[in-house]
Amino acid sequence: MSDQSKKFRVAVVGATGAVGQEMLRTLERRQFPAESLLPLSSSRSAGTKLIFNGQEVEVQEAAPESFENIDLALFSAGGSISKKLAPEAAKRGAIVVDNTSAFRMDEDVPLVVPEVNPDHLDDHQGIIANPNCSTIQMVAALEPVRKAFGLNRIIVSTYQAVSGAGADAIDEMYDQSRAVLEGKKAEANILPVSGDKKHYQIAFNAVPQIDLFQENGFTFEEMKMINETKKITGDPDLSVAATCVRLPVETGHSESVFFEVNHDGVTKEDVFRVLKEAPGVTVMDDPSEQLYPMAVDAAGKDDVFVGRLRKDLTDDRGFHCWIVADNLLKGAALNSVQIAETLVQKGLLK
Amino acid sequence: MSDQSKKFRVAVVGATGAVGQEMLRTLERRQFPAESLLPLSSSRSAGTKLIFNGQEVEVQEAAPESFENIDLALFSAGGSISKKLAPEAAKRGAIVVDNTSAFRMDEDVPLVVPEVNPDHLDDHQGIIANPNCSTIQMVAALEPVRKAFGLNRIIVSTYQAVSGAGADAIDEMYDQSRAVLEGKKAEANILPVSGDKKHYQIAFNAVPQIDLFQENGFTFEEMKMINETKKITGDPDLSVAATCVRLPVETGHSESVFFEVNHDGVTKEDVFRVLKEAPGVTVMDDPSEQLYPMAVDAAGKDDVFVGRLRKDLTDDRGFHCWIVADNLLKGAALNSVQIAETLVQKGLLK
Repeated sequence: MSDQSKKFRVAVVGATGAVGQEMLRTLERRQFPAESLLPLSSSRSAGTKLIFNGQEVEVQEAAPESFENIDLALFSAGGSISKKLAPEAAKRGAIVVDNTSAFRMDEDVPLVVPEVNPDHLDDHQGIIANPNCSTIQMVAALEPVRKAFGLNRIIVSTYQAVSGAGADAIDEMYDQSRAVLEGKKAEANILPVSGDKKHYQIAFNAVPQIDLFQENGFTFEEMKMINETKKITGDPDLSVAATCVRLPVETGHSESVFFEVNHDGVTKEDVFRVLKEAPGVTVMDDPSEQLYPMAVDAAGKDDVFVGRLRKDLTDDRGFHCWIVADNLLKGAALNSVQIAETLVQKGLLK
Repeated sequence: MSDQSKKFRVAVVGATGAVGQEMLRTLERRQFPAESLLPLSSSRSAGTKLIFNGQEVEVQEAAPESFENIDLALFSAGGSISKKLAPEAAKRGAIVVDNTSAFRMDEDVPLVVPEVNPDHLDDHQGIIANPNCSTIQMVAALEPVRKAFGLNRIIVSTYQAVSGAGADAIDEMYDQSRAVLEGKKAEANILPVSGDKKHYQIAFNAVPQIDLFQENGFTFEEMKMINETKKITGDPDLSVAATCVRLPVETGHSESVFFEVNHDGVTKEDVFRVLKEAPGVTVMDDPSEQLYPMAVDAAGKDDVFVGRLRKDLTDDRGFHCWIVADNLLKGAALNSVQIAETLVQKGLLK
């Protein structure tokens, strides 16, 4: 059982980054029971002053000792930092909620979307992984459908915002846009992947690469969507395919999703009924009013928005839909904080 | 048999529009055997002077009598103009190549991509339809695959450029981009569909509506892709599904395509072999070099570019790919001129 009056000592690793900043704001506005807040970062940003719950806090350089006397550590500072410091935090008794891909596929690390698989938290070993942004919004919308009608197959094509690649990528998109509007050449130094060999213009373009290519020709982002979806749903036989594409959109990932249920005769109305009751999901779907979700509207909102639901014209079990969410909120910061809240509710955070 | 020395009297209806202008340039650079060129338009643009093959020509207002003594009339001035004037042109002995959706699904009107179904031209009754831009590039790439391995199913999600909605839509995208960069509100008056009730921001957004919604919840653009693909391939049983999305890209449509062949054991290399020999198709696919097609690179080029080819990880017959083409060229003007060239080669244009 949980003690509702208890407050926790919270650390945020990567506190000055795009997601880290959003984590602080989300902890504040959802009134997470924080006794104290320790913002951590690389040495480069250490010393920065931030305001949390009206109090000034100074960013400190993240080190193993930072996690002494910390109950909860939210990580979003890149996979290598997590690999190095998350085990140190866990060793010192903190529960880690990690927003990188470092531990997601580890067998003893729960990968959690609180609306979907909160029970996976029960067996945590100190580190809990936050799924990839593009995975979270898809499973949040599709898991209620899977529970109601079964699910054989998902084929998704994504329309992903640059903020998923960090604040520098946002700047690059706007700088390039300005250059193109002035008739100049767009300079590319970051996207599609800062650590890859070649960089391409994102302004007024669509780039079919997010993260590095894998041996099998899929990108790592695509494999994350495939493997994480199977792990979160607990269904290794679910057929998932993904094509991940970066767009000149600041915030808000959109997804064109085909899914196949495993019962005959399921109607569009049946699926609507399930989606309308799904926690964290808002249905926005009325063709007669041109009502459908879009990235610019979803940015800044907590929910996962679903629209353009159609039954396939030839496959009785097939459906198409359009899923949009704020990739920094439900795709990252909000989902991490929701995991922390669920840990509190379950009495797992002590 | 064709008389290679014969020259033809050509009219272009909608000569001052985005596609019309591209038609004139395409006729010039491909040295279409034009004896004369008559640019036609609405009364608003009549009187405009254009240069064609080094000669000044004056745009005239399109009327039924305009087509007296015309051998070939290329139409791209909207469906209502085509409905009114294409039959008048045909009645006067001109062969019409119509780039609107007015006649595409008419039984006695061939719908032609010259690399795919040139034989459909043989039975024309005076009007030939140019397919929708997003359909052309998809069938150009997939028909060689269908011929080699059969095709059961296509599921496509599109990433379409604003130039498909005309020159005003391009201006709107750049005006909105400028406004957003200056911290102002983006004003929307045209997209997603100029004739629809509501208009939404396209700059830094992705809008899942192209053309008007139909009764079944699909948009007209989506139904064009579905129905035209079946007609062009001559396979009414082919399962086709489409989700069409407008992006802030000036020119160049991209498509994320899943297709299912109807033979077991087809490999990625088998599909590559077929695509590399396909006329009008260029394979751009090397993950190790981050080589894949993108809209900004395809703009201004004639070919259909295919990359990101992957075999599905669970469906032995399933493949994913990324198809990009210039929607004003192969998607419109070039394909229309290629239809005219094929008519000449077949001796059908006399």
